[in-house]
Amino acid sequence: MMKVVALAGGVGAAKLVRGIVRVIPPHYLTIIGNSGDDFVLHGLHISPDLDAIMYALSGLGSETTGWGIADDTFNCLQMLGQLGFETWFKLGDRDLAIHIARNEMLENGLTLSQATNELCKRLKIVSKLVPMSDEPVRTMVYSGQKRFYFQEYFVKRGAKDKVTCVTYEGCQNAKPSPGTLEAMRAAETIVICPSNPILSISPIFSISAIENEMRRTKAHVIGISPIVAGKAIKGPADKIMASLGLEVSPYGIAKFYKDYLDCLIIDRKDARFKTSIERLGIRVVVADTVMKNLQHSISLAKTVLEAPL
Amino acid sequence: MMKVVALAGGVGAAKLVRGIVRVIPPHYLTIIGNSGDDFVLHGLHISPDLDAIMYALSGLGSETTGWGIADDTFNCLQMLGQLGFETWFKLGDRDLAIHIARNEMLENGLTLSQATNELCKRLKIVSKLVPMSDEPVRTMVYSGQKRFYFQEYFVKRGAKDKVTCVTYEGCQNAKPSPGTLEAMRAAETIVICPSNPILSISPIFSISAIENEMRRTKAHVIGISPIVAGKAIKGPADKIMASLGLEVSPYGIAKFYKDYLDCLIIDRKDARFKTSIERLGIRVVVADTVMKNLQHSISLAKTVLEAPL
Repeated sequence: MMKVVALAGGVGAAKLVRGIVRVIPPHYLTIIGNSGDDFVLHGLHISPDLDAIMYALSGLGSETTGWGIADDTFNCLQMLGQLGFETWFKLGDRDLAIHIARNEMLENGLTLSQATNELCKRLKIVSKLVPMSDEPVRTMVYSGQKRFYFQEYFVKRGAKDKVTCVTYEGCQNAKPSPGTLEAMRAAETIVICPSNPILSISPIFSISAIENEMRRTKAHVIGISPIVAGKAIKGPADKIMASLGLEVSPYGIAKFYKDYLDCLIIDRKDARFKTSIERLGIRVVVADTVMKNLQHSISLAKTVLEAPL
Repeated sequence: MMKVVALAGGVGAAKLVRGIVRVIPPHYLTIIGNSGDDFVLHGLHISPDLDAIMYALSGLGSETTGWGIADDTFNCLQMLGQLGFETWFKLGDRDLAIHIARNEMLENGLTLSQATNELCKRLKIVSKLVPMSDEPVRTMVYSGQKRFYFQEYFVKRGAKDKVTCVTYEGCQNAKPSPGTLEAMRAAETIVICPSNPILSISPIFSISAIENEMRRTKAHVIGISPIVAGKAIKGPADKIMASLGLEVSPYGIAKFYKDYLDCLIIDRKDARFKTSIERLGIRVVVADTVMKNLQHSISLAKTVLEAPL
């Protein structure tokens, strides 16, 4: 049975891995999660992308919003607002338990990957989820002279600033977290999830040991375009790609990942890009890629794992 | 108009101060709150007694339970339980916002009294609430060789252990928080609230500068017996007093506070103790002291503030 590694951002990745674990035994999957969006809010360490994956795999996740826990309440947040605190980050009451638990573990000296592992165990998640690094790497979004944490740019300011530059602070000194390279080496397939290439996948690649491993891996590397019909399915990938001068299309995605990809899965709506992408030396599979429910996730996971070598 | 200082524990004190601020202008009241019950839970600094006062004065408090915020939900707590964490301390979702806010302020370098002041301001509380000290003083309950934090003894273990000793760790080095002695010196009346004498008021007196000020004050010192008809109205005061060999009656309370009290208010059910208490040199007012609603709180506050000099 094949071992799979998924490089994952938030919502799109969460939807795909939810399908993968229904196609292969969950313990064959290792997810390398983006921790570049992590930030501290009200003194609590928040890992939005790791949470999205945990919620998807534990079954706690909300199907409707794509983030947070299903049917969560927001009473703590409402009271924080009443106390005059910022409430742009939509902390649910149940969601908060994860942040409080992680924060306590980190304060007790656990690394981010140990805390993640502990939370996954407690949520009875069988797949392995590792943050890309235990060292802080922070995705900073610049708009001219202004500088934002990703969540500030995206959630607080509504992705309205023109992005002129994105940096991954701390990446020079960051090592992959334990098990990351080993999982990549053991994998037959490495999946680049349909996540934001600049803000979710590039932070993972900003860690040079991971990027090197991606270049030299013998695993089958398969991506799924997060751009469908000229738009990001969710989030600001389209805006950011355009801001940075990248073509907002599966072809733009293929070019961005061309040093790594064996195969790119693109949506039926984008079938016309097949030939130009293949000219880059990347195989193309055309499929339905928009995951609106669990069945779509399973179906796309099958497409990914059955992609031709 | 007379300035009043109230020495306060949790629920009983919260009910009384709620009445006091309806009898005198709220800014004439300073509450010196017990911080001996403070503890760290899931990495968050919790101040149960300060919270009880804040909730009572802000109108957020629950009338039914006497602790926490009215109509609070417990979804975060339920999820913490699902994650395998202890859930004996009933953290409400709205309540949690206060703990998160305080914790962030303390992590940002504010003292406990600064954080308390900031929270009170945000909750539009006009009276001044000061913790007895900015230094940690921790009420430790011993049962033979076993040693518990007060909240562990009371909430987690249901006050079932026989108490052999109570200590106030750190009291030797603790100074009164800023404004405490000044408020006592400016007060015409100092009220010892109907709180647990061993676990709520003694921690305040364990700070020698406060205890000295109580001995020498020219203010009118009035207590309200927390023991009515041989029982504590709420909490374990009766058990603990008995364990430590004190008489569980208003007379026991009078003896305990005899170095400080000018006047003790006792319940009508305990009128028979009047003469013996007066023999200690303490004036006695017999009144209805059980506060089941706001009207009772106002009525008792009037009795306290109109007590004969």
